Amino acid sequence: MIRAGIIGATGYAGGELARLLLGHPEAEIVWYGSRSYAGEPYASIYQNFFQITDAQCLEDKMEELASEADVIFTATPQGFCASHINEEILKKAKVIDLSADFRLKDVKIYEEWYKIQHKAPEYLPEAVYGLCERNREQVRGARLTANPGCYPTCSILSLYPLIKEGLADPDSIIIDAKSGTSGAGRGAKTDNLFCEVNENMKAYGVASHRHTPEIEEQLGYAAGRPVTLTFTPHLVPMNRGILVTAYATLTKSITEEELREVYRKYYEAEFFVRLLPEGVCPQTKWVEGSNFVDVNVKLDPRTRRVIVMGAMDNLVKGAAGQAVQNMNLMFGLKENTGLLQIPMFP
Amino acid sequence: MIRAGIIGATGYAGGELARLLLGHPEAEIVWYGSRSYAGEPYASIYQNFFQITDAQCLEDKMEELASEADVIFTATPQGFCASHINEEILKKAKVIDLSADFRLKDVKIYEEWYKIQHKAPEYLPEAVYGLCERNREQVRGARLTANPGCYPTCSILSLYPLIKEGLADPDSIIIDAKSGTSGAGRGAKTDNLFCEVNENMKAYGVASHRHTPEIEEQLGYAAGRPVTLTFTPHLVPMNRGILVTAYATLTKSITEEELREVYRKYYEAEFFVRLLPEGVCPQTKWVEGSNFVDVNVKLDPRTRRVIVMGAMDNLVKGAAGQAVQNMNLMFGLKENTGLLQIPMFP
Amino acid sequence: MIRAGIIGATGYAGGELARLLLGHPEAEIVWYGSRSYAGEPYASIYQNFFQITDAQCLEDKMEELASEADVIFTATPQGFCASHINEEILKKAKVIDLSADFRLKDVKIYEEWYKIQHKAPEYLPEAVYGLCERNREQVRGARLTANPGCYPTCSILSLYPLIKEGLADPDSIIIDAKSGTSGAGRGAKTDNLFCEVNENMKAYGVASHRHTPEIEEQLGYAAGRPVTLTFTPHLVPMNRGILVTAYATLTKSITEEELREVYRKYYEAEFFVRLLPEGVCPQTKWVEGSNFVDVNVKLDPRTRRVIVMGAMDNLVKGAAGQAVQNMNLMFGLKENTGLLQIPMFP
Amino acid sequence: MIRAGIIGATGYAGGELARLLLGHPEAEIVWYGSRSYAGEPYASIYQNFFQITDAQCLEDKMEELASEADVIFTATPQGFCASHINEEILKKAKVIDLSADFRLKDVKIYEEWYKIQHKAPEYLPEAVYGLCERNREQVRGARLTANPGCYPTCSILSLYPLIKEGLADPDSIIIDAKSGTSGAGRGAKTDNLFCEVNENMKAYGVASHRHTPEIEEQLGYAAGRPVTLTFTPHLVPMNRGILVTAYATLTKSITEEELREVYRKYYEAEFFVRLLPEGVCPQTKWVEGSNFVDVNVKLDPRTRRVIVMGAMDNLVKGAAGQAVQNMNLMFGLKENTGLLQIPMFP
Repeated sequence: MIRAGIIGATGYAGGELARLLLGHPEAEIVWYGSRSYAGEPYASIYQNFFQITDAQCLEDKMEELASEADVIFTATPQGFCASHINEEILKKAKVIDLSADFRLKDVKIYEEWYKIQHKAPEYLPEAVYGLCERNREQVRGARLTANPGCYPTCSILSLYPLIKEGLADPDSIIIDAKSGTSGAGRGAKTDNLFCEVNENMKAYGVASHRHTPEIEEQLGYAAGRPVTLTFTPHLVPMNRGILVTAYATLTKSITEEELREVYRKYYEAEFFVRLLPEGVCPQTKWVEGSNFVDVNVKLDPRTRRVIVMGAMDNLVKGAAGQAVQNMNLMFGLKENTGLLQIPMFP
Repeated sequence: MIRAGIIGATGYAGGELARLLLGHPEAEIVWYGSRSYAGEPYASIYQNFFQITDAQCLEDKMEELASEADVIFTATPQGFCASHINEEILKKAKVIDLSADFRLKDVKIYEEWYKIQHKAPEYLPEAVYGLCERNREQVRGARLTANPGCYPTCSILSLYPLIKEGLADPDSIIIDAKSGTSGAGRGAKTDNLFCEVNENMKAYGVASHRHTPEIEEQLGYAAGRPVTLTFTPHLVPMNRGILVTAYATLTKSITEEELREVYRKYYEAEFFVRLLPEGVCPQTKWVEGSNFVDVNVKLDPRTRRVIVMGAMDNLVKGAAGQAVQNMNLMFGLKENTGLLQIPMFP
Repeated sequence: MIRAGIIGATGYAGGELARLLLGHPEAEIVWYGSRSYAGEPYASIYQNFFQITDAQCLEDKMEELASEADVIFTATPQGFCASHINEEILKKAKVIDLSADFRLKDVKIYEEWYKIQHKAPEYLPEAVYGLCERNREQVRGARLTANPGCYPTCSILSLYPLIKEGLADPDSIIIDAKSGTSGAGRGAKTDNLFCEVNENMKAYGVASHRHTPEIEEQLGYAAGRPVTLTFTPHLVPMNRGILVTAYATLTKSITEEELREVYRKYYEAEFFVRLLPEGVCPQTKWVEGSNFVDVNVKLDPRTRRVIVMGAMDNLVKGAAGQAVQNMNLMFGLKENTGLLQIPMFP
Repeated sequence: MIRAGIIGATGYAGGELARLLLGHPEAEIVWYGSRSYAGEPYASIYQNFFQITDAQCLEDKMEELASEADVIFTATPQGFCASHINEEILKKAKVIDLSADFRLKDVKIYEEWYKIQHKAPEYLPEAVYGLCERNREQVRGARLTANPGCYPTCSILSLYPLIKEGLADPDSIIIDAKSGTSGAGRGAKTDNLFCEVNENMKAYGVASHRHTPEIEEQLGYAAGRPVTLTFTPHLVPMNRGILVTAYATLTKSITEEELREVYRKYYEAEFFVRLLPEGVCPQTKWVEGSNFVDVNVKLDPRTRRVIVMGAMDNLVKGAAGQAVQNMNLMFGLKENTGLLQIPMFP
């Protein structure tokens, strides 16, 4: 059994990690870290775990945890993991960081977009960007994995084949993304109150959201050159789910079926990426609670644009599920171990 | 492997049966019956199953199915199972009926409340009311199990200890129940459109809902005499979940802790019934996607009443999950096999 | 023009007061009080008012406001109005208090349920309980009106004819109430986050909610003797709306039509109380945004109980709308002035 | 008083017309047309109108209605108005068509996108596209007004200043639109059931939605040349509201403040278009129930793109409210008569 510790176990991503790891046949949770709730039963914070675990919340002590765990998940605000990580810890335990601390290779871009100083830039070269479908082999050998952001996961998987194959102009990419409210976290903010979100919709972080450089870096690898794109997230009155609608201009004449064939080539061997049948638009509800990403493409011959759509559960494939997928790879398990949840509908 | 067939696989309860059985380690689905969608891929009706099953929908032919299956689930409108069941079928396969056809022992009451003639009253004596927590032993030996209704499951489990122990006057029982909209089925009716249900709440079936006699019969067994009670269901703008708030007048002086002790006695060995900590009110979200029922009691010394609360997922413990629980018992499996889903929050 | 000041203008009830008063033909708002947002444009707090008012939020200074206003609405936490009210203020302006400070005539009951000391018990005898349908004449002459609570308004109007006419046993009353989340206010609490409320339902304040004694006092006047009842509120995933389902045991034999005739007698002349057609259950959506209360009754001959249902918008008839209705009476206007909003559906 | 008749009064747009016209000081409804519900009280279909109107639904007879009304609103499926309109009718009554029949000047484009034959192309030259903010003067003199589509209203008002001033390349326009579910109508379809829409999001009509040519035609007038653009609508789990997020590439160097100055010039005299303060993103909830459209712009210097956002209530400014606005102009009333509803929040 892999002994897993969670730092930040009482946030939504932490809670989802607990749900997945408690159902994982090869892992056990040895540490539910929570600065705010230390000493309280974990199941009193998230009553869904009542009679499933009787563990108590512990302090967010990464060093101490490293001695007791084989893997540490940091589901913490930006800056925490970079501030605490060190060689001592990494010698004892593998680390999967769900924050943005090790996602961007260029420390300047990190500091510019996140407005904080990076405390451990020396680990940036080693950290592996844990998008398994792209970096599977590197993840297997990683000590420190940067779990991708929710929007980047859905955006990159949706656009990757298109850009990698040079079928669309990278500079034409516009990503219009819509997220359920769990992506905003469990902090008590007026903006996230039920009455403010329900029956409402808005864009936010327009032309300035921090996930932008992460998407650009990864799609840059696909394009073989720097990519600058437009990314606009929106808040939707639902708990879970991200829907990405991305637009790009074709670089060559291609039919929708040829385009689908390209996607099929990339994804037919991927367990978690489902290329939907022709003409079927992804719906977030069809992947809820699961680690799947549903994608599809539509050609618009009138404008020579392609519209790429992707849907996933932001807390699973966009956070905790992908983290477990990374753990599986890092510990030599089958990649979908513990991740066979069938989406729940309705 | 238990070969399972589902008649009515494209309703919401049928879809949930598919979700649970596809994840069940000892069962496989051999028949997705659907009169409306016969010939179409099941995953085209419920795209959450895309790349999980490539089965096609088949006709609702119970006799033919009996030759291919060990167990038949009928997730069909009232009257279907009673019209089709016969000795031929029961010799070949066990039947778990999710409709009301075999829940009420008294055919007159069935015909009065359901306004249809019962076509197979000869099977009423044999049919076992599949509330496992009450009739575990009979279910084990059953050929024909009547899967309890959603409201009755939550109501009976919430009230049973109270009535069985004679702590409350059965004639004082008032059950105010609230259900998510999936309980209304997948039929295309104006009343169930998003815009009619969302941001709205109403009672329905007041003093006339068909689940009333089912609750009365079962609580009558607990009371040792006929029970007549008030039951009022409400429609709530959420997909899943039933919340029962029941009221009854105490017959003797008792403290809340003593009352909780009674409930503890009844439920501490039950895997799926969770008596919440003192003062914690059940929430439907804490059981979503799982087979748990969360219950709690509160004494109101001012009125000498007890308020009993129960919460469960109407599609799981209220339908498909309980059906699988019954299947497990009928086939000698551990009762919670394939039913270990942890509730999903948020 | 009546000059109106609002203390607590940036809560939900305060915002609704602004909506109604800005559309009122005989009133103008001269003071948007908000301790938290003093100095900021009111429309920057509630952007729905953008270009409708350019007023700035002012301090919550009741004395100063009294010199500038004809009427002061205190949409403030319990204790505020009682702490600040005095003869100086009441000589200059009429006061309509939306908190509970002056709703209960018995100061001991107030202090017991609200757990705070009452700072102005000397005004309790003078204060009028502003349920216009019951106390119309007293409201007309009032200097200080206690605007009823949301649950009490819906509960009392639903049950009053039944109790006043002695048709049901007051001691048998059970009120099961369901409220949209705006009733919980705009404070930033984890429990009221979108993800905690959405797709969820729960009871709260079981056997202990502060609105209980208010309902009991008012129904006690109807019964002509003290009433003790059970009241259970629930939180529903919708913004607005209260639905009350109340149960009581009949004291005499009566038909549903006779019962409806009684209700007709009480309410046919009431503009804001609509007795729905026979068999039609009230729905909160049918009154959204309006000052209407929809009620109906259903007899259950099997149990000799009557089920009374009431639906209203908790922010309008349950708070701001009723406050304006009170203002109209206190200033000699037609009672429905500025309150002709037609419910919005869907 | 303007005598108004509604054909299709029992659809959502028809119901909203009733709400607005019943509150209109200069209009009265003389005809609630409804093929499906003829003979039934209108308030039994939409119980929000209970005790507000006791009118009965009448047949959808446009000719007969023309003799009794000064204005006819056709809130009907595509093809109805074009099939029934004639000189007889237009001599007696003005017609405001809420369907698409007279929105597109080119009958070929209509027939290509709507897949039906146009039965009255002879009225296309005369029909005025009733976007008041653009065609105010023509509307004043119109006999037949084509009420704009919901998506086009929001899209065109959001983009018009940008395109008219040549600040962005018309061929670069991408409109990503999100709509509440009332836009899908009140027809009983499985896809629009609560459980299918709630907690879900999807694109639909990708690269093929019928509102595309309408937006293109109108923005073509602004550009002075044909425009081909990408338009993608999405279904959002809310009742009301459209949010448009539109993208375009700048043609020249401009600051955000200069761009806002352009928008200010176009909209500062417009009552119903509100240019929000710098940096504030429109939210659909801020305009709910009102005829306002909130717009704002954001420059993305990194990509030289502008992001334009617009929010409105699809049933008001996107349908019934705009129709009343058109009626006001056609009958010489002040444009905002009966349209002063303040948005309802929350």
